[in-house]
Amino acid sequence: MTIEQLKKDVRNVPDFPKPGIQFKDITTIVANPDELRFMRDELAAMYRGKGITKVVGIESRGFILAAAAAIELGAGFVPIRKHNKLPAETIEVSYEKEYGVDIIQIHKDALSPDDVVLIHDDILATGGSMLAAVELVRKLGVNRIYVNCLIELDGLNGREFLAKHGVDVDCLMSIEVDE
Amino acid sequence: MTIEQLKKDVRNVPDFPKPGIQFKDITTIVANPDELRFMRDELAAMYRGKGITKVVGIESRGFILAAAAAIELGAGFVPIRKHNKLPAETIEVSYEKEYGVDIIQIHKDALSPDDVVLIHDDILATGGSMLAAVELVRKLGVNRIYVNCLIELDGLNGREFLAKHGVDVDCLMSIEVDE
Repeated sequence: MTIEQLKKDVRNVPDFPKPGIQFKDITTIVANPDELRFMRDELAAMYRGKGITKVVGIESRGFILAAAAAIELGAGFVPIRKHNKLPAETIEVSYEKEYGVDIIQIHKDALSPDDVVLIHDDILATGGSMLAAVELVRKLGVNRIYVNCLIELDGLNGREFLAKHGVDVDCLMSIEVDE
Repeated sequence: MTIEQLKKDVRNVPDFPKPGIQFKDITTIVANPDELRFMRDELAAMYRGKGITKVVGIESRGFILAAAAAIELGAGFVPIRKHNKLPAETIEVSYEKEYGVDIIQIHKDALSPDDVVLIHDDILATGGSMLAAVELVRKLGVNRIYVNCLIELDGLNGREFLAKHGVDVDCLMSIEVDE
């Protein structure tokens, strides 16, 4: 298995969720046993030895590999969810989307300042939701934070946007947004 | 690690999502590295040797362990999602909830009749969403289907409801709904 093969097998769905968008669909690669395992292994290899104690997955596609990678790294899994989905006491961050504002939340007791956190999502687009996730984790006092995605959409400047806010991101692969 | 320990560590959140409900919160047990790994291992052990080719997770808490278990079983991961979340061609099933109707979907090309499928969700309550998931998988021509949950809520008769529709379910643990 190679990253090149993986990139080929990501499905491009034109006009989803609206006309003109080329949606990168990871369901094809997570459905393939070899590719699923390869992604988990690659992800774990990138962060092994860094003392990761918690892998934070962003709802809901970020959950798929975050928990599997957490197990491989000997870490726990923590979800970041949309508004009103987490049952216990939460803190939240809101961020602007193309239309309106989104709110994401994390349990207040999910992380502590001594945690070393890996935040994972499937796709990095403009970086808005990823920055919001980093801010949530920082709010809980964590300062050792790694940020990861499966696919970076080249052409949307998510990486540059995050860098402006002091956030480095590592992605498994990069795909042209209009490819 | 034992199932008894796991049961103790599931967090009970009173009055979520509405007054009178004792919500069973799995975020405490997935955040614990030993418990997270234990659940993945127990889940995989229950289905090893059965020829599982796909593990289907129900959005979104079902995604957490479904993908990890899939890797352990040498299978792929397939998501069942809420309405309008999957980008490619889908089929759907609607089912009644306490207030109104919910729709869940699966990609039309996600499974084929020769697949051996394990459907996984975190909690079995009345069984409505689990039966809908089984119906979705059956609609794609699959007839070898296993059904699993982490926690069976004792007192809501989800198991009996599923049995009436020819569905057997295995759960890692059982917790009294009012406990």
